[in-house]
Amino acid sequence: MVITLLTDFGTQDYFVAAMKGVILSRNPSVQIVDITHQVPPQDIRAGAFNLLAAYRDFPPGTIHVAVVDPGVGSDRRAIIMDCAGQLFVAPDNGLLSWIAQRESKSLVYHVTNRSFFRQPVSNTFHGRDVFAPVAAGLSNGVAPSELGTLIDAMIQMESIDPTVRDDGRIEGTILHIDHFGNCITNLTAEHLGGRGTDANLKLIVNETLISSVRQFFSDQAREDSQLFMFLGSAGFIEIAAPNASAAAILKARTGQSLALSASTVRDEIGST
Amino acid sequence: MVITLLTDFGTQDYFVAAMKGVILSRNPSVQIVDITHQVPPQDIRAGAFNLLAAYRDFPPGTIHVAVVDPGVGSDRRAIIMDCAGQLFVAPDNGLLSWIAQRESKSLVYHVTNRSFFRQPVSNTFHGRDVFAPVAAGLSNGVAPSELGTLIDAMIQMESIDPTVRDDGRIEGTILHIDHFGNCITNLTAEHLGGRGTDANLKLIVNETLISSVRQFFSDQAREDSQLFMFLGSAGFIEIAAPNASAAAILKARTGQSLALSASTVRDEIGST
Amino acid sequence: MVITLLTDFGTQDYFVAAMKGVILSRNPSVQIVDITHQVPPQDIRAGAFNLLAAYRDFPPGTIHVAVVDPGVGSDRRAIIMDCAGQLFVAPDNGLLSWIAQRESKSLVYHVTNRSFFRQPVSNTFHGRDVFAPVAAGLSNGVAPSELGTLIDAMIQMESIDPTVRDDGRIEGTILHIDHFGNCITNLTAEHLGGRGTDANLKLIVNETLISSVRQFFSDQAREDSQLFMFLGSAGFIEIAAPNASAAAILKARTGQSLALSASTVRDEIGST
Repeated sequence: MVITLLTDFGTQDYFVAAMKGVILSRNPSVQIVDITHQVPPQDIRAGAFNLLAAYRDFPPGTIHVAVVDPGVGSDRRAIIMDCAGQLFVAPDNGLLSWIAQRESKSLVYHVTNRSFFRQPVSNTFHGRDVFAPVAAGLSNGVAPSELGTLIDAMIQMESIDPTVRDDGRIEGTILHIDHFGNCITNLTAEHLGGRGTDANLKLIVNETLISSVRQFFSDQAREDSQLFMFLGSAGFIEIAAPNASAAAILKARTGQSLALSASTVRDEIGST
Repeated sequence: MVITLLTDFGTQDYFVAAMKGVILSRNPSVQIVDITHQVPPQDIRAGAFNLLAAYRDFPPGTIHVAVVDPGVGSDRRAIIMDCAGQLFVAPDNGLLSWIAQRESKSLVYHVTNRSFFRQPVSNTFHGRDVFAPVAAGLSNGVAPSELGTLIDAMIQMESIDPTVRDDGRIEGTILHIDHFGNCITNLTAEHLGGRGTDANLKLIVNETLISSVRQFFSDQAREDSQLFMFLGSAGFIEIAAPNASAAAILKARTGQSLALSASTVRDEIGST
Repeated sequence: MVITLLTDFGTQDYFVAAMKGVILSRNPSVQIVDITHQVPPQDIRAGAFNLLAAYRDFPPGTIHVAVVDPGVGSDRRAIIMDCAGQLFVAPDNGLLSWIAQRESKSLVYHVTNRSFFRQPVSNTFHGRDVFAPVAAGLSNGVAPSELGTLIDAMIQMESIDPTVRDDGRIEGTILHIDHFGNCITNLTAEHLGGRGTDANLKLIVNETLISSVRQFFSDQAREDSQLFMFLGSAGFIEIAAPNASAAAILKARTGQSLALSASTVRDEIGST
């Protein structure tokens, strides 16, 4: 049985260890895996993206605990989502909504059974006092319906999908900037329409035009340091630059908009 | 069986992995949990604080290995502390003293049985050569008394408790600054004397007055970015600021002094 | 059964977690240990050093997965090395060559059996799609020969050994700079020739002379902040400075050259 943890707590303090101690105190045989604890403080989108990109690689029955929780201590709800053969425990603030959007079915429970909580429940550290013990309970076989009550809807973030205009122009966004400076967009292979490296694609980010599409990083047929698009490992189009940070070159930020269009023969003539 | 690790080794080098390899070579079934490896180099107080804040959440019988060890290679002792139903392995430099101060009883052993050490013992990496193998031995059921000799006293850091003056003024210190920039003081709920958010409390840090007390971060009744006190999850009063680093605003540093006093009606009149 | 992971992926993204999810999906009972994920991007030497310094502390049968992989997506080979009673899975780019140089025997296999890969295999994330599932297969008892074909040679980095000149001068390099700013050289105790702290050794790095040799950090007989040599825990001579970063003082960089010579009486007279 695997429990994953994703937080914005960083790794310099005792926070993550306290969550693990609570879990192991209640279920000594569980395997705990860190997804990341370096979500930028209170950045729900970054947390949502990393969980979205990782959950499908975990075994059926995995319990994911995600705590990016600006509203801790307020009356925001704690929820359990039963989805894709796995369970997700999180504050109800949109953190799980991209996964729910992708999967066809999900059941969501508002966690109300305080008897599983670590006592006393602090006002500031529900990762330790609420989410970790609830996950431990689930790992011990307690049903979500014993821990809370089924609800109709949870808080949704904006759709992860880009907007496709009538003229074929696609308006998207940068979901995440990774460790290498690659910019992960919300465009997918579908938006490239089967067009490969020879397509006349125009991606505009911060008034910079990116038209090159590569299959992989070390495609040395192209010149170095040039920005290019590729289909990234999370299933989204990413923007990268050989041996450089595309984000730094583009001065790109998470959440900013971008636009993709396909050049047509008419465009090419018109621009001559 | 859980072994936790807390060091100032960072996570970019092989150091922590070598400790884990030594442990798993001697006890393949143990669960290893990182508390943190980002203690600032040689900062015994920061290590002591994080261990203090985390140990109670771990199961009975947990073995905690703490290595912040400026004296490695010298004649400083290695010790095992049997305390609170758990075992602690560390250099004898004060790292465990706050836990001993909090708990009523502890037994301390000077580790002298070199037959458990990894050979040859280096002069610079006792985490791998002494502390990890001793912890592995303990996890295999070797008694502390087989690994060392009972001693009367270990090195103590200064008391973790603040000083209460005759006039009620409390002189404390900043124990730790966390990932979010919150300043954890050595004041506890007891020092607030049951006074809640309406108390006329004055906390002075670096000539800055903090008088607001909140119950939780998202208490939006108060204005943003204002410094406030709250009872933190480790049981200490913390200083925070909404969506900002209190430490940066205060130019606060670990170990610096602060003073807490309660305004009285007389004070209020006198100051008019 | 232990699987270790070493990458340049950092810990802020989902990358490492995805590898762990793939492994645990295929072998739920394996123990996964991180060596480090903070290898500087694409720095094969830094990855090779950290793996070299850690592998011998792990139990027989451990499977090490190392992914520093500038050539991902190209036709560089994936390999399995059977060496020192352990298995190593990596891209064929020199990452394993220092271990092969140290150990007398090794068998190397080119991974060709795609039936174990995660499908579809991306062009950019073979850590998840190739190396993790291959390691999981090995941990389940699949033989290297079932996963690939034995090959005669893998890519070698330059030798880890320094060059000894006819006049006794030793030309070496800085292998790694650690978290504390210590500079790990490729010189070993053998190159000090049994000369202890009283030897007239001259180590030159960036035109700076280092002649002091210490047994351990807290050797307070010498003045503070002075650069000194000591035999480090990985078996190499390191350069350090008390309470300071030797690398910063020396403006040292990984891969740069250095020279060691021993003063003789004649030298001493000659220099008077």
